Amino acid sequence: MFGAIEAGGTKFVCAVGTGPDDLVVGAPIKTTTPRETLAEVLAFFKPYRLRAVGVGSFGPVNLAEGRITRTTPKIEWRGYPLKRTLEESLGAPAVLDTDVNAAAWGEHCFGEAPDPFLYLTVGTGIGGGGVVNGKLLHGKLHPEMGHLLLRRADGDTFPGLCPTHGDCLEGMASGLAIAARRKTGEHDFAVEYLAGGLLALSYAYSPLRIVLGGGVMKTPKLRARVAKRMREMNCGYAPLPKVTAPQLGDLSGVLGALALVSYR
Amino acid sequence: MFGAIEAGGTKFVCAVGTGPDDLVVGAPIKTTTPRETLAEVLAFFKPYRLRAVGVGSFGPVNLAEGRITRTTPKIEWRGYPLKRTLEESLGAPAVLDTDVNAAAWGEHCFGEAPDPFLYLTVGTGIGGGGVVNGKLLHGKLHPEMGHLLLRRADGDTFPGLCPTHGDCLEGMASGLAIAARRKTGEHDFAVEYLAGGLLALSYAYSPLRIVLGGGVMKTPKLRARVAKRMREMNCGYAPLPKVTAPQLGDLSGVLGALALVSYR
Repeated sequence: MFGAIEAGGTKFVCAVGTGPDDLVVGAPIKTTTPRETLAEVLAFFKPYRLRAVGVGSFGPVNLAEGRITRTTPKIEWRGYPLKRTLEESLGAPAVLDTDVNAAAWGEHCFGEAPDPFLYLTVGTGIGGGGVVNGKLLHGKLHPEMGHLLLRRADGDTFPGLCPTHGDCLEGMASGLAIAARRKTGEHDFAVEYLAGGLLALSYAYSPLRIVLGGGVMKTPKLRARVAKRMREMNCGYAPLPKVTAPQLGDLSGVLGALALVSYR
Repeated sequence: MFGAIEAGGTKFVCAVGTGPDDLVVGAPIKTTTPRETLAEVLAFFKPYRLRAVGVGSFGPVNLAEGRITRTTPKIEWRGYPLKRTLEESLGAPAVLDTDVNAAAWGEHCFGEAPDPFLYLTVGTGIGGGGVVNGKLLHGKLHPEMGHLLLRRADGDTFPGLCPTHGDCLEGMASGLAIAARRKTGEHDFAVEYLAGGLLALSYAYSPLRIVLGGGVMKTPKLRARVAKRMREMNCGYAPLPKVTAPQLGDLSGVLGALALVSYR
């Protein structure tokens, strides 16, 4: 029996099982303080004896050290040793990765996502992960695909919401940015930035597919509009990836966390 | 004995050997028509019996089919089956990759370039390759890092030279663009776009290092200026890669082509 934790910035989702057809998913647990949230996580896993637990975590996360970075905006989680704490409490080895990399791994192992492919989620924030040459993307820390600095759309006066960059991709097209724009009647610009982000990632990676998930992408026709605009910006230059929804739907994150340990 | 061909858009460079300490490099051969250029290439290799030949080719190149694409601006090379022709003429298997991927492989195998790392060349054009998870970057075709669409610098009126995109990275900061700008007194803007390109690639990949080569980067202090500006644009957000010169210098390309077959 394997354990899985989708450790999101808003909620944690825990599960036990081995794959999509053998999965028990717990009720969402609110992300508050490490102490409160982890107590509920441990209560969920109490009846099970786990061989290993996979964790897809909000970030930024230092994978080498197994802890949330000291720079995360979630003050109570700064520097929190998530991997070690879980291993000690659960008595099982933990594999930690970013939430987006975990989701990418789920889509690759349990879905049909090819190699190379990228997974981009557009929700409260924007983040990306992916599979290249058979493995997940790791690096100096991890990719920050949501913070690409793109050209501003003509006539767009929105200053952007990113505390660091202002008008980066996340600052201009995250769920929070779209909500703030709605008040100004500028909501159509999100398509422009998301398409620009996808085109930049296509030129950077030449992926076979980009899976575009997250709450914002549940907006009807939004994914198709973004893909169409990306093609227009490309002017026929490079072969572009298919842009698809997550095959695992809302379970990409928790199944991906599971796949970090259950899929060999 | 292994063969190597750096098949550039301006010149081909051939070599035989096994690595940096055992290498015979031929005189550059001008890139004209496939027939003329290949005749000189074959003449160079005539005295040698090759186990295999590695080829780093100008692009775009269809690696699956082993041929230059039908869309290359070099009209005489459109659709040219480079891999098959070389294999038949030389009587040895050929491994074909992009010029920039070959250079990246050389820096990784014979230099100290880590994993993941990217290799970006700024010459007549701009192109990029890299090593991720132990292997070179491949995809739907191959990355087109030179064509990233970046935000325009304040006060820059240059329209850009890219026939497709106009003011993409290559259109604004290639050697040709810099030469054209010089006439207008706008040459300092290249730093801005190169820094923006490196930052976008850093956010996309989180690489440990970006090797920045090509003729333009021989300009004194240019590499350091680009790296400094990239750091400014980052505003302390993400850990950034080291930006270095190619360790193999002008031999990155041909040694990289060699490494495609000689390095195991």
